[in-house]
Amino acid sequence: MHSFKELSALFEAQFNSRHFPQTPSNLYNAATHILQIPGKRIRPVAVLMGNELFDDIVDDAYKVANAVELFHNFSLIHDDIMDKAPLRRGLPTVHMNHGENAALLAGDVMLVKAYQYLAQINTAYMPAVLNLFSKTATQVCEGQQIDMDFEKRTEVSLEEYVEMITLKTSVLLAASLQLGAIVGGARGNNQQHLYEFGKKLGIAFQVQDDYLDCFGDPQKFGKQVGGDILANKKTFLMIHTLQVANTEQKEVLESLLQNNAADKVEKVLALYKNCNADTWAQHLKEKYFNEALQHLEDVAVLSTRKQELKNLAMYLLQREH
Amino acid sequence: MHSFKELSALFEAQFNSRHFPQTPSNLYNAATHILQIPGKRIRPVAVLMGNELFDDIVDDAYKVANAVELFHNFSLIHDDIMDKAPLRRGLPTVHMNHGENAALLAGDVMLVKAYQYLAQINTAYMPAVLNLFSKTATQVCEGQQIDMDFEKRTEVSLEEYVEMITLKTSVLLAASLQLGAIVGGARGNNQQHLYEFGKKLGIAFQVQDDYLDCFGDPQKFGKQVGGDILANKKTFLMIHTLQVANTEQKEVLESLLQNNAADKVEKVLALYKNCNADTWAQHLKEKYFNEALQHLEDVAVLSTRKQELKNLAMYLLQREH
Repeated sequence: MHSFKELSALFEAQFNSRHFPQTPSNLYNAATHILQIPGKRIRPVAVLMGNELFDDIVDDAYKVANAVELFHNFSLIHDDIMDKAPLRRGLPTVHMNHGENAALLAGDVMLVKAYQYLAQINTAYMPAVLNLFSKTATQVCEGQQIDMDFEKRTEVSLEEYVEMITLKTSVLLAASLQLGAIVGGARGNNQQHLYEFGKKLGIAFQVQDDYLDCFGDPQKFGKQVGGDILANKKTFLMIHTLQVANTEQKEVLESLLQNNAADKVEKVLALYKNCNADTWAQHLKEKYFNEALQHLEDVAVLSTRKQELKNLAMYLLQREH
Repeated sequence: MHSFKELSALFEAQFNSRHFPQTPSNLYNAATHILQIPGKRIRPVAVLMGNELFDDIVDDAYKVANAVELFHNFSLIHDDIMDKAPLRRGLPTVHMNHGENAALLAGDVMLVKAYQYLAQINTAYMPAVLNLFSKTATQVCEGQQIDMDFEKRTEVSLEEYVEMITLKTSVLLAASLQLGAIVGGARGNNQQHLYEFGKKLGIAFQVQDDYLDCFGDPQKFGKQVGGDILANKKTFLMIHTLQVANTEQKEVLESLLQNNAADKVEKVLALYKNCNADTWAQHLKEKYFNEALQHLEDVAVLSTRKQELKNLAMYLLQREH
C-alpha cells in the first residue's frame, strides 16, 4: 500500500509529460498553462487509492487518473471565465493570460483529451467508467449553474447549499474513488460505499473551508480571513446564522451585507460567534466526517488496506491521528 | 436503401425527444434552445448513410448520429460565444438569449451528453468510435483557433486556408460517414475511402459557400450577397485574388478592405471577376467534387449501394443529375 504522498509523486511523474501538440500554439499554450501549476492532485490520487484498496494498482487506473485531473482543470478554466476570476492559487487565470476565447477552447480540448484517456482502458470496464465519469461531469456543470443562480437569490436553504456543494465539488472526489474501484474489479456494493465515503468527505471538507475562511489562521490557511464575507458569499456559516439569528441580529447582518464598511468582517464574525455558528460548523463537519468513515468501514476489504484512505481523510480535514 | 430525406425524417423522429432534465432550468433551457431550431441534420444523416452503405442500419448508428449532432451543436454554441455572433440561421444565438455563462455551460453538458450516447454502443466498436470522435472533436477546436488566428493576420495562403476549412468543417462530415461505417463493420480500407469522400466533399461545399456569398442568387441562397466581403473575411475568392492580382489591382483591393465604402461589395466583386476568381472557384469546387466521387468509387461495395451518397453529394453541391 502506498501513502498519499507516494502516490502523488507516482502520478505526477507520468502526468507531467506533454498532453497536447505544439500547434496551434494560441490554443495549446493556454491548455498547457494551467496543467503546469503545481497542485496536490487530490482527485487523481483518489483514483489510485480507490484502485489500490482492492488490489495492486493497474495501468488503467493511471489513465483514469489522468482523465479526472484533466476534467478538473477543464472545469477550473471554464469556471474562472464565468466567475471573471483574475487569479487562481495566486497566479493569473488562463483567460487573463491567453484571452477568453483561447481559454474557452483550451477547456474544450482538455475535456476531449480526458475522454481520449478513458478510451484506452480495458473495454470490460469502459462503459461503467464512461457512464460514471459523464454523469459526474454533468453534475459538476449543474453545480456551477446552481452556484451562479444562488448569487442572484437572497435566501438559500441549508439543504439547497449542501446539494450545490455536493454537485460542484463532492461528487468528483466520490467518483474518483469509485472509478479506481471499478478498474480494480470491485463489487457494486463496495463501489457504492467508497463513493459515499468520498461524497461525505467532500462535504466535510467544504464545511471546513467555509469555517477556516472565518476563523482560520491566515498563516496556515494561506488566504485572507473573511474573503467570503467581503464577497457576500453564501456559506455554511452565513446560511446557518441567517436561519438562527433573532430579528435584531438578522437586521444587523442584512445591513452589514448591504455595504462594505471597514469593520464588516469583524462585525459579521462577532455575529457568527453570538449565534454559535462556529461551534455548529465544527459539529457539522464532524457529522459528515464520521458518516464518511462509517462508509469506509462498510467496504468489505481487510481493514489494513483502508489505512491510507483514513490517513487521507484525516489529512484533508486537518485532524491529528 | 434510404434517401437523405427519408433518413433525415427517421433521425429527427428519435432525436426530437428531450436529451436533458428540466433543472437547473437556466442551464438546460439554454441547452435545449439550439436543438429545437430545425436544421438539415446533414452530419447525423451522414452517419446513417455511412452505416447503410455496408448493411441494414443498426441501432448503434442512431446513438452515434445523436452524438455527432450534439457535438455539432456544442461547437456552434461555443463558436458563437467566441465570435460574439448575435444571430444563427436568423434566430438569436444561445448566449444572446440565455447569457454567456449559461451558454458556455450548456455547450459543456452537450459535449458530455454526446459521449454518453457513445458509451451505449457495442463495446467491440467503442474504442474505435471514441478515438475517431475525439480526434475529430479536437481538430474542430483547432480549426476554430486557426480561424480566429487568421483574423489577426494580413496574409493567409491557399494551403493554410484549405487546412483551416478542413479542420473546422470537413473532418466532421468525413468522420460522421466513417463512424457509421465502423459500427457497420466496414473494413479499414473502405472506412478510409469513405472518410476521404466526406473530407473532399466538405471542402468542395466550402468553396461553393464562399462563391455563393459573392455570386449566388440571394433568393435561393437565403443570405445577403457580399456578407463575407463586408466582414473582410478571408475566403477562397479573396485569397486567390490577392495572389493573382497585379500590383495595381492589389492596391485597389487593399484600400477597399480598409474601409466600408457604400460600393465596397460591388467593387470587390468586379475585381474578383477581373481576376477570374469566379471561374477559378468553380473549377476548384469541381476538382474537389471529382476527387470525392473517386474515393466513393473506390469503396469496395456494390455500386447500387452508393447511389444515395452520390445523390447527397450532388444535392449538397447543387448539381443536377
